[in-house]
Amino acid sequence: MKRRDFIQKAGVGSLAAGAGLAVPQMARAGVQFKWKMVTAWPKNFPGLGTNANLLAKMITQMSGGRIKVKVYGAKELVPAFEVFDAVSRGIAEMGHAGAYYWKGKSASTQFFSAVPFGLTAQEMNAWLYYGGGLELWRELYKPFGLIPAPTGNTGVQMAGWFNRKINSFDDLKGLKMRIPGLGGEVLRRAGGTTVNMPGGELFTSLQSGALDATEWVGPYNDLAFGFHKVAKYYYYPGWHEPGSTMEALINEQAFNELPDDLQQIVLMACKAANLDMISEYTARNNQALNTLVNKHKVQVLPLPDDVLRQLKVLSDEVVNELANTDAMAKKIFDSVTGFRTQVAQWGTISEQAFLRARSL
Amino acid sequence: MKRRDFIQKAGVGSLAAGAGLAVPQMARAGVQFKWKMVTAWPKNFPGLGTNANLLAKMITQMSGGRIKVKVYGAKELVPAFEVFDAVSRGIAEMGHAGAYYWKGKSASTQFFSAVPFGLTAQEMNAWLYYGGGLELWRELYKPFGLIPAPTGNTGVQMAGWFNRKINSFDDLKGLKMRIPGLGGEVLRRAGGTTVNMPGGELFTSLQSGALDATEWVGPYNDLAFGFHKVAKYYYYPGWHEPGSTMEALINEQAFNELPDDLQQIVLMACKAANLDMISEYTARNNQALNTLVNKHKVQVLPLPDDVLRQLKVLSDEVVNELANTDAMAKKIFDSVTGFRTQVAQWGTISEQAFLRARSL
Repeated sequence: MKRRDFIQKAGVGSLAAGAGLAVPQMARAGVQFKWKMVTAWPKNFPGLGTNANLLAKMITQMSGGRIKVKVYGAKELVPAFEVFDAVSRGIAEMGHAGAYYWKGKSASTQFFSAVPFGLTAQEMNAWLYYGGGLELWRELYKPFGLIPAPTGNTGVQMAGWFNRKINSFDDLKGLKMRIPGLGGEVLRRAGGTTVNMPGGELFTSLQSGALDATEWVGPYNDLAFGFHKVAKYYYYPGWHEPGSTMEALINEQAFNELPDDLQQIVLMACKAANLDMISEYTARNNQALNTLVNKHKVQVLPLPDDVLRQLKVLSDEVVNELANTDAMAKKIFDSVTGFRTQVAQWGTISEQAFLRARSL
Repeated sequence: MKRRDFIQKAGVGSLAAGAGLAVPQMARAGVQFKWKMVTAWPKNFPGLGTNANLLAKMITQMSGGRIKVKVYGAKELVPAFEVFDAVSRGIAEMGHAGAYYWKGKSASTQFFSAVPFGLTAQEMNAWLYYGGGLELWRELYKPFGLIPAPTGNTGVQMAGWFNRKINSFDDLKGLKMRIPGLGGEVLRRAGGTTVNMPGGELFTSLQSGALDATEWVGPYNDLAFGFHKVAKYYYYPGWHEPGSTMEALINEQAFNELPDDLQQIVLMACKAANLDMISEYTARNNQALNTLVNKHKVQVLPLPDDVLRQLKVLSDEVVNELANTDAMAKKIFDSVTGFRTQVAQWGTISEQAFLRARSL
């Protein structure tokens, strides 16, 4: 609608929204944006898919409907592992995934999702928002025409479901386990065999013995999958994924077409969704853990200290190699490991010391 | 401005935004709101005052200036301890404070800020957003015409600065310490003397010996105050404030006058600000801790297990008495302690176990 038309129509009370304003910013505020959000999750998948729904809803509500965001589950518009490309090419304006899926684009993406013995959710957000992490992430995605934003965190995951007891480091040898990413590389160096398969096949593979073990997420998601029916031991802690970050991917050009207020709405919705997910997992993991322990009599066991110690040595080796991939990887590695060294000292006398004191 | 005036002005191309729309929601979207935010902090106070600034800025930016929020430091419009009343009475539309300041209004407010041996930041947010906590908080503030929203968290604080070594529980006897709230009541029962004084007087009181000890926040805020110059020992963990929540107070009537999109913007800005503060403290506490330890050679010491154990017994006693204040207190107590019992189990095998594994 042209401005002149609007002013006339405004006089007779038309429905046109926000048009006819003298300030260009305000004029653009009247434009309706229809955005697609492609996701790496099955539609409505608890915690992850529902976070995408929440994010879309918040953007739509805060913008008074000026951006309508429609969420697509994996395969509805593009397969899970094509979310990055789809948003990069503008097939969709937004995506919702985890950065470790894109290691084929750049090995460094893994720094922004989960690093073995890396940062917890709280520490990760501290690094991203106040430690230079988000700037590096943006720099990494810039050549792809993408703007990343953290939009959720699962918190510390579980080490996984096992049908073999892990009493010593040697028990990892020959272990057939589904464990992707950097954690998988660590297990391979520990003598295990990693198997990659879709989530839907894990249950039967554990049942048949094709797998000895699998990691997934934590009690909230794991209970729903019913792993307790086919695996004997539930090990902790999730050394390989201490604070898995989920990402929103935003097509840079689509973002730049938004007026300032809508740009802020998109970014702040991601930030609010980020806090929402860790809150949901923290609340629901513990409810689910209770069900697993009290109702299903699951044996929850700690990985022995010696096993953790040796996994940490291998993890450092793997992450150091990742750092040597290229200059960008080195820059991110230096930033995140410098931050980790300091934040770990603070964590020891704050969160860790308090949680310990509370359980004395 | 009345709607009729508005439409006439829009007709001659005025600056009025979104005018002349047939839908009431859209019509109201054109209204300009000018809000005052009164705070319990000195203007620009690091972490707390700056969070209020950020919150105001986010609301203004996301609304494209349709709500302009002006922040007032303590005493600029009303004193710190009158923030609650000022927002309740509509002198200001918003406030930024900590709920424990309002125990004179209702003892239960303390459940929504800091409880000794209570919830960490992550757990507190889980309880508030996914454990029924926020609903109870809203119920508690409803009679005052206020809507509360969590808007920040300092994380685990430090036990404080001491000029006397705490080797046993008996060393707390006769200790003159600045420690307010429920923690202060616990210290009194441990035989200490609590002294209440403004932050600005703490430095000289420690120096003169009028105080043996003071708690404040954590390294980030404490370093700025220079306590390391007048106190010998810096004790951890902050058993009395494991995850101090900051609150936004919103005048209910002012909130109800907003169109839906602006209501969402106000609430989601609080949620994003909530994550921002804990991220800032996590990043800056650890930087400041390094300065304290490496540059100023501060002795950082743990409270002995036995002292923590006995403080916990007294804390439970104090919190149980708080629960018996009235029916509402009992309802909140039951909710939060039920949640704590479960979440502590999960914390033990997730955050706590991971942080321990990382430091092996």
